Amino acid sequence: MKKILLQLDSDRTASVFDAVTAYDACADILLQYGGVEAAEVRALVYGAMFTRGPSDLKNSAIFVGGTDVAKGEAMLKEVCGCFFGPLRTSVMLDANGCNTTATAAIVKLLSAGDLRGKKAVVLAGTGPVGRRAAALLAKEGADVVVAETLPTETMERAKAACATIEERFGVQVTPAAAADVDATGRVLEGAEAVLCTGAAGLQLISETLWRGHPTLRVLGDVNAVPPAGIEGVKPTWNGKEIDGKLLFGALGIGDLKMRVHRRSIARLFEQSDLVLDAEEIFALAKELSG
Amino acid sequence: MKKILLQLDSDRTASVFDAVTAYDACADILLQYGGVEAAEVRALVYGAMFTRGPSDLKNSAIFVGGTDVAKGEAMLKEVCGCFFGPLRTSVMLDANGCNTTATAAIVKLLSAGDLRGKKAVVLAGTGPVGRRAAALLAKEGADVVVAETLPTETMERAKAACATIEERFGVQVTPAAAADVDATGRVLEGAEAVLCTGAAGLQLISETLWRGHPTLRVLGDVNAVPPAGIEGVKPTWNGKEIDGKLLFGALGIGDLKMRVHRRSIARLFEQSDLVLDAEEIFALAKELSG
Amino acid sequence: MKKILLQLDSDRTASVFDAVTAYDACADILLQYGGVEAAEVRALVYGAMFTRGPSDLKNSAIFVGGTDVAKGEAMLKEVCGCFFGPLRTSVMLDANGCNTTATAAIVKLLSAGDLRGKKAVVLAGTGPVGRRAAALLAKEGADVVVAETLPTETMERAKAACATIEERFGVQVTPAAAADVDATGRVLEGAEAVLCTGAAGLQLISETLWRGHPTLRVLGDVNAVPPAGIEGVKPTWNGKEIDGKLLFGALGIGDLKMRVHRRSIARLFEQSDLVLDAEEIFALAKELSG
Repeated sequence: MKKILLQLDSDRTASVFDAVTAYDACADILLQYGGVEAAEVRALVYGAMFTRGPSDLKNSAIFVGGTDVAKGEAMLKEVCGCFFGPLRTSVMLDANGCNTTATAAIVKLLSAGDLRGKKAVVLAGTGPVGRRAAALLAKEGADVVVAETLPTETMERAKAACATIEERFGVQVTPAAAADVDATGRVLEGAEAVLCTGAAGLQLISETLWRGHPTLRVLGDVNAVPPAGIEGVKPTWNGKEIDGKLLFGALGIGDLKMRVHRRSIARLFEQSDLVLDAEEIFALAKELSG
Repeated sequence: MKKILLQLDSDRTASVFDAVTAYDACADILLQYGGVEAAEVRALVYGAMFTRGPSDLKNSAIFVGGTDVAKGEAMLKEVCGCFFGPLRTSVMLDANGCNTTATAAIVKLLSAGDLRGKKAVVLAGTGPVGRRAAALLAKEGADVVVAETLPTETMERAKAACATIEERFGVQVTPAAAADVDATGRVLEGAEAVLCTGAAGLQLISETLWRGHPTLRVLGDVNAVPPAGIEGVKPTWNGKEIDGKLLFGALGIGDLKMRVHRRSIARLFEQSDLVLDAEEIFALAKELSG
Repeated sequence: MKKILLQLDSDRTASVFDAVTAYDACADILLQYGGVEAAEVRALVYGAMFTRGPSDLKNSAIFVGGTDVAKGEAMLKEVCGCFFGPLRTSVMLDANGCNTTATAAIVKLLSAGDLRGKKAVVLAGTGPVGRRAAALLAKEGADVVVAETLPTETMERAKAACATIEERFGVQVTPAAAADVDATGRVLEGAEAVLCTGAAGLQLISETLWRGHPTLRVLGDVNAVPPAGIEGVKPTWNGKEIDGKLLFGALGIGDLKMRVHRRSIARLFEQSDLVLDAEEIFALAKELSG
């Protein structure tokens, strides 16, 4: 029986990236649907649920993607709302790569050592990747600060992000404003780890700041477009040691991200009742790097 | 050479149900086209006709689906109008599952015994499934009544449906109005079989009516959404005997429907000149249950 | 690793013809994208570039199609502009079959003998197929005349086409007007070869003209819809000899065209840095017929 993956994508053209990765993971057949609205989800999911018997439904699965993570989250909710009893398929959310990127980044930070009870900052952390990264760090026991870097309504945005993190993940994280160099310096005081999840091509930490920093010992950056989020960090760095600190660039994190993505797809076809969101994908990421 | 099925669907998102079923039947490759207008059909069909030699064209086939059966019928006509000489592929119409559902339901009714010369009622039978079911029963020799259940223009709708049935299938069926309980009772007088093809979640026959009915000996219902079209009938019933009557619920019929659907797809790839519409799919359904 | 072809098509419904041909050539998986705008190309191509390592990228490739050749050319440019370093895939342009048709037609003309220093006319040659055919003949050393057959602004259109040919292919070809029978006769004076690339169902050369022509020795016609572009020529003729002249109809050329198309697709998956446009596909066509 063929492994069929239903790709639900809110963009008009469903992601080629997700498609190729699905085939490379193990999917035999991909049914691609682009421009999907939440209201269209039910009919599509029913088509997956009602075509194979319960014992065969592990060979059908659903991937929710698209660049708009909020739409992806809404679609995931719709998908899960369609299932009942044994009539269900496994489903994975990775809109804009949010879960695979966040989990890979956090696994990299943790490779430098436990962060339990330590201060960890997610800089420009109010977006989908940042919020997930912050939640996962908090679940690992770190004292997490989510810092907004935009100049307007900075603290308001940070607080709003922290509220959604608490609501979704049940963890407490601390909002902060880091709209300029001085504020960023203050936010990083006492921190042992920092992850930059800012927009492409936006530098957030100067080389002066991190090289001489007294407490930072691990830094990660998910931005692959020059200039890097952390000045001087090369995208390919994968645990490069400088001045006693470990540094991870976007491609260094990206290699693990790809493996996490593929492993997650493969996992979907092992049983029919999985919902792979941040927590579950994080567990897979830790297994892969373990 | 790969078995390629061209899925033409009038809905924006081509049916996942039809896609999974096609792959499970035997198709190697599905080319899915959603939101197809009749005017777009020719170019798509030419692409199927002109890419393989006549002796290879049995490995290409066309499936016409979509929830709008009238559009599906128009597309089927367009498809067949493209073919000439040996440059043709087999094609199947099953928009909204109309043919596989109707044929499976009638095969179930007939499993209770011949209906030649007997009165058979298709209740709420003016829609695509009902019209097909009525035509197939008439071809089997039953005296068929097609009853409309909507409260307005009830008899006019029933007559219009019978006219289209006569035009399309060349059989005579009798129109009737069954917009309330009393009228339904009168329509069922003397009937040996009844099939309910009403809208989802709409009860058409009360338990009181069918349990005590003096002539009815087989009843079928294609509505899987509670309440059932026939009060007290469970969707999973597949020839359940109660008070000397055989009862078929939507899932009881649905299992055969799925097998008919898969067998029809497989049949498409055995030769290049088949047009699988109600009559041909009915023959396959009878073979499968025989 | 599966051979994945990304089909970028400017038409709303991506070509079935191109899809079936891709699978028959050797593609394992086709990712079809219809209605693609140039602005959407980058995200799609990045999805192909960033999912596999450089040494595996020969298993990913891109096909640019669609009936609008100008849009296809713009998309090809966009595609090539995305690549950098070893992060690239092979790509082929065959919008509206322009390259496979033109190259197959010219190979057929050349099968009648070398045209170096000989006059060759491309009649109704200002469209995408005609311009490519003219360029390829010029590169083979023929003295090429590109004749417009429309009655208005005839010479202006011919000159404009010759300018685009010179700009794109770096060859000199001569514009001419052939809007009526007499003008067509004059344009063909002294010509040894003529290829008709006019609209479907449009006769461009009378049987009287070609049968008695003193210098013509090979004629080709890519129009498969009656009447033929060359009166009396049957579509299936594949080097038919009449009055000492060799004649090729649309299907006679079409058979080679199909083989060229399939071979080009197969070629895409042999390395990751090919750009298959007119010149490269012409080389493949010559190999195939050699």
